[in-house]
Amino acid sequence: MKRVKIAVIGASGYTGLELLRLLLTHPHAELVCVTSRQNAGRSIGELFPRFSGAEAASLSFIAPDADAVAASGAEVAFLALPHGVAASYATSLLDKGLRIVDLSADFRLDDPEVYKEFYDGEHPAPELLKEAVYGLPEVHREAIKGARLIAAPGCYPTSISLPLIPLLKQGLIEPQSIVTCAMSGVSGAGRKADLSIIFCETNESVRAYGVPKHRHLSEIEQELSKAAGETVVMSFTPHLVPVHNGICTTTSAMLKAGADPEQVQAALEAAYGEEYFVRLLGKGGCPDTKNVTGTNFVDIGWNYDPRTGRVLLLSAEDNLGKGAAGQAVQNFNLICQLPETAGLENF
Amino acid sequence: MKRVKIAVIGASGYTGLELLRLLLTHPHAELVCVTSRQNAGRSIGELFPRFSGAEAASLSFIAPDADAVAASGAEVAFLALPHGVAASYATSLLDKGLRIVDLSADFRLDDPEVYKEFYDGEHPAPELLKEAVYGLPEVHREAIKGARLIAAPGCYPTSISLPLIPLLKQGLIEPQSIVTCAMSGVSGAGRKADLSIIFCETNESVRAYGVPKHRHLSEIEQELSKAAGETVVMSFTPHLVPVHNGICTTTSAMLKAGADPEQVQAALEAAYGEEYFVRLLGKGGCPDTKNVTGTNFVDIGWNYDPRTGRVLLLSAEDNLGKGAAGQAVQNFNLICQLPETAGLENF
Amino acid sequence: MKRVKIAVIGASGYTGLELLRLLLTHPHAELVCVTSRQNAGRSIGELFPRFSGAEAASLSFIAPDADAVAASGAEVAFLALPHGVAASYATSLLDKGLRIVDLSADFRLDDPEVYKEFYDGEHPAPELLKEAVYGLPEVHREAIKGARLIAAPGCYPTSISLPLIPLLKQGLIEPQSIVTCAMSGVSGAGRKADLSIIFCETNESVRAYGVPKHRHLSEIEQELSKAAGETVVMSFTPHLVPVHNGICTTTSAMLKAGADPEQVQAALEAAYGEEYFVRLLGKGGCPDTKNVTGTNFVDIGWNYDPRTGRVLLLSAEDNLGKGAAGQAVQNFNLICQLPETAGLENF
Amino acid sequence: MKRVKIAVIGASGYTGLELLRLLLTHPHAELVCVTSRQNAGRSIGELFPRFSGAEAASLSFIAPDADAVAASGAEVAFLALPHGVAASYATSLLDKGLRIVDLSADFRLDDPEVYKEFYDGEHPAPELLKEAVYGLPEVHREAIKGARLIAAPGCYPTSISLPLIPLLKQGLIEPQSIVTCAMSGVSGAGRKADLSIIFCETNESVRAYGVPKHRHLSEIEQELSKAAGETVVMSFTPHLVPVHNGICTTTSAMLKAGADPEQVQAALEAAYGEEYFVRLLGKGGCPDTKNVTGTNFVDIGWNYDPRTGRVLLLSAEDNLGKGAAGQAVQNFNLICQLPETAGLENF
Repeated sequence: MKRVKIAVIGASGYTGLELLRLLLTHPHAELVCVTSRQNAGRSIGELFPRFSGAEAASLSFIAPDADAVAASGAEVAFLALPHGVAASYATSLLDKGLRIVDLSADFRLDDPEVYKEFYDGEHPAPELLKEAVYGLPEVHREAIKGARLIAAPGCYPTSISLPLIPLLKQGLIEPQSIVTCAMSGVSGAGRKADLSIIFCETNESVRAYGVPKHRHLSEIEQELSKAAGETVVMSFTPHLVPVHNGICTTTSAMLKAGADPEQVQAALEAAYGEEYFVRLLGKGGCPDTKNVTGTNFVDIGWNYDPRTGRVLLLSAEDNLGKGAAGQAVQNFNLICQLPETAGLENF
Repeated sequence: MKRVKIAVIGASGYTGLELLRLLLTHPHAELVCVTSRQNAGRSIGELFPRFSGAEAASLSFIAPDADAVAASGAEVAFLALPHGVAASYATSLLDKGLRIVDLSADFRLDDPEVYKEFYDGEHPAPELLKEAVYGLPEVHREAIKGARLIAAPGCYPTSISLPLIPLLKQGLIEPQSIVTCAMSGVSGAGRKADLSIIFCETNESVRAYGVPKHRHLSEIEQELSKAAGETVVMSFTPHLVPVHNGICTTTSAMLKAGADPEQVQAALEAAYGEEYFVRLLGKGGCPDTKNVTGTNFVDIGWNYDPRTGRVLLLSAEDNLGKGAAGQAVQNFNLICQLPETAGLENF
Repeated sequence: MKRVKIAVIGASGYTGLELLRLLLTHPHAELVCVTSRQNAGRSIGELFPRFSGAEAASLSFIAPDADAVAASGAEVAFLALPHGVAASYATSLLDKGLRIVDLSADFRLDDPEVYKEFYDGEHPAPELLKEAVYGLPEVHREAIKGARLIAAPGCYPTSISLPLIPLLKQGLIEPQSIVTCAMSGVSGAGRKADLSIIFCETNESVRAYGVPKHRHLSEIEQELSKAAGETVVMSFTPHLVPVHNGICTTTSAMLKAGADPEQVQAALEAAYGEEYFVRLLGKGGCPDTKNVTGTNFVDIGWNYDPRTGRVLLLSAEDNLGKGAAGQAVQNFNLICQLPETAGLENF
Repeated sequence: MKRVKIAVIGASGYTGLELLRLLLTHPHAELVCVTSRQNAGRSIGELFPRFSGAEAASLSFIAPDADAVAASGAEVAFLALPHGVAASYATSLLDKGLRIVDLSADFRLDDPEVYKEFYDGEHPAPELLKEAVYGLPEVHREAIKGARLIAAPGCYPTSISLPLIPLLKQGLIEPQSIVTCAMSGVSGAGRKADLSIIFCETNESVRAYGVPKHRHLSEIEQELSKAAGETVVMSFTPHLVPVHNGICTTTSAMLKAGADPEQVQAALEAAYGEEYFVRLLGKGGCPDTKNVTGTNFVDIGWNYDPRTGRVLLLSAEDNLGKGAAGQAVQNFNLICQLPETAGLENF
């Protein structure tokens, strides 16, 4: 059975951890290199006791040096690094012939000016933006297949844009009327020693944050604008809720005058009826994060409120799964011509 | 010190429990009667070990009979009963000279037709609707003071309407553009043996429910319409999140053309600057439920998104506190000419 | 690839759910029959949305009738039924030529008198007790391989007896000095509408229960007595803690006079050094349930307190995994001559 | 009404926070000084939004300087500081005429050698050890009343020693047979940015820690030895469980030959029958932390296992309440001749 040699760069955060979890059992992946600046020299099994029973548990973390990564024989590298840092590794590793699935924000935006506006700095490798493909397989599958550099979407963008894109493409909703609230598990805040996310500060706590201009808006609006054929500006409020992982997203938008609400179901089915990782719950369906955690599925339900004329789109995904590591593996499968669901058929 | 004799009708749910918790230490309340159909004969301390150290812990539950309640000498009765059931007790107990603070939905709506639409049945005591006062002290304080029958507002309505009312009164936002998402703790679903709320079904779970026409919309829109001077119809999506108590509410609405966003702060301050139980966090403030649980406070922050022209209103309250029992006690204080904060100054 | 046809009898509790989760992706199992009295006619995917993406999601639950189960072609049946009920299905299905992995307590005890003492009733099928094999593979592997009827151990018994058995066999600890405390996740209480396990009654709650004579003591003491070569009576206190799944067990026992504490490590290594599903953390290791949830691993650490002369044994497992469904699948693999880890290599 | 002027030194940890919560509403306490090295200059309400409605919310933290504390007019100082640091403040403040309730470990031990053994360093003020009174009011009430320096007991010691002391005093149990497991909420680990206690590392996790010689053993064994009239050495295993606050403790010990198990109940009643803060649940009672969180109560149940001859003692307290801040306030009330329950009658 074909096994592609893999490196995971920056493997000690929650996204990196979930990537390891998936790759350790992926039938077509062979983990040959993991890097972590802080944990160089320690093995996967030592640092993450959960994985100590895996075949690759004895693999040791090395410092994130591009030459060393290349020397490991890796053919594909996953970058689970902070934005700004990822770009330089991408450049070096592409030069050395590796293909890249980047989980940071560095290559998600087409326009370096938008990057600058949302990420407070010049884009570190603007020449690569043209080449990078936005890794949302249900929307950009064909482009992904041939790409060297994948920009895996953010967690909120995946859960927000998947339900909206078919409706915008078919002109069923008013593009400027979109209002989204989303609730994320605490793993979305990262694996770091930060007082605001210790157990006693987050348990029994619910709060909005990052308003009114969360960084993820940049890529969400970019993708929605493409779908709508016009510039979309929307309202998005993220919330932190006391679960480990999972994002629950609720979006409402005005049905366009003349549209029939039942067209919503038709549009979703046309777009996703054949998609394995998108599960349509139909009108009235209220997705629950507990049904998707640990998986690469996104569940989508919808409703229509004749009193307000608003369409309601409800989705649930795992922020570490379809929102990060799972989707990255899905992209990896595509660029390597592997079965798209390989390593992701778990429940 | 004056102590008013109190009965709590239906004291074995979470709202009843929180009422007991507050009343057991209220300096001006003397608990003389508690009823519970299922638990008649058992004492407060036996049924709720948490309260076994209280002076009134030995008081026994009786069956909810109006004559027996009156015979206890109670001057004020709190009704923590399901809608439809509360109305008949209210009628009987008013006849016997008690004043009533009703925590059900039975007397919140002015119009029995709206009750019928949202609560699936004829209103059980329409003649009392005119007399009942909607118990939101920050809005209806003077009317409350003289009332015999208080309809304490629902949990969602309190958290949603408090921030909106001043803005609608001053014409700062478009009344038909209101979109609200709210997240409630599981106690909002009641204290009952129901598979959908057992620990393993709610922990590590986030989900919307009750869409698109939650019953609470009836009273929210009623109060918002009064404030706006026109009929308000809005979008409201409640969510269940794994906390014991607390509601986090996020509302957005279009700023009216010509209005200055800074007027939002001015309007909130004019309305609530002197209100003890409303704490204004100002522009950029993101209230956190963990700061209000167990209290009668509601924390309110706001923001403005110039990209969309939307005002964002953020609030946090305890669904059992300001959203139910705390507010009921605040109303009780008002109708008995007690200090409004009596028994509610805890943190 | 050989696939064994499987039936799961009583598949709608948490143990049944975890069995389904494992079997849906087991490379050598083909789910052909699932039963549920309450949910007959509904499909797996309909009842458990988490599984709706699985190949077998469209399989419908049938009523638990032995003839119908046999007619499905099932070669092996897993029984996830209450004690007392399991025995009669076991009898019927064995008669029809199926092999049985029973997850109830019905066949765990050698002596029907002990069953009667701990389970309040005559044993329903005492003639099968001799044939049944206690399904703890690390202790009874060879007997399991040839068995028609496996009694999969209870959750607490697995986590308690695995660390103790090697020490008792080698005479390192005083058999009558064993004191165990264990903490279980709420799924151990079952998937049922019960007020005592709704979210608000279990979250932010820690409590002992079932003292001083939990039913699981019967099988624990049976197995420990075999290992010690004398009748062992021990103290065991279970606790309920607010996690979904996982059992953390802490046992202490007096080191025998003359024994060297370092022999503990040697005994554990001799017993489990080659066992895939037992991970030894060594002296000082404190296992954490979060490293084993969702898996079939049991992590074991130990310590020695020279002040008291007590050996401390610490273990962590998933009560639904190695404590129930995972171990049942491990037994299934053994009786079907499949690789012992098949379907269980997930992290 | 008499109000004693109070300082809280080190008020930004969870113990400090709970002290503030209690003192802000204490009818006989006037908070005049709060210190925090990191937060000097910020007000209580600013740092802890939960308290922003309190009368004293505008009081600003100052740096912890003994002269400044004395200048505030404080008559009593609570020290919520790390061990080692507390002693020097105690010395200075006693010199300036304040009385001290110290919540650290600095003055709990009679013997500086034991301090050195358990706390890795010379005792910083051994001359004060003789004067300090161990602040367990139910055991040392009279000595507390006249003390200038109170050493408030640790959280585990309170929950462990309260049930054991009467039994040891009456010679009902074997002093060398004591085995204790306890489970603590995460607030016991402090309010600090530490990776091991962030939400995703503690939620859905149960683990033992600090074995086999937790620091609290020093004071527990000291107090048990006094009660037993002989040197007691015991086994104690603490566990971390995902709740905010609360300690659940399970202790077992051999009933002495010739003793009748029913004497256990008699001994507990004789010791605590009149104690407001100790609630006896009787034989079979299993205390639940959720009934004591936020209060100063400790609930105690017990059992007897005739199979093993072991007495089981079960207790529940709030680690921040009776285990820290609540008990400190109880001590404060005693040294100031206030009603012992003042400020602590909340549920």
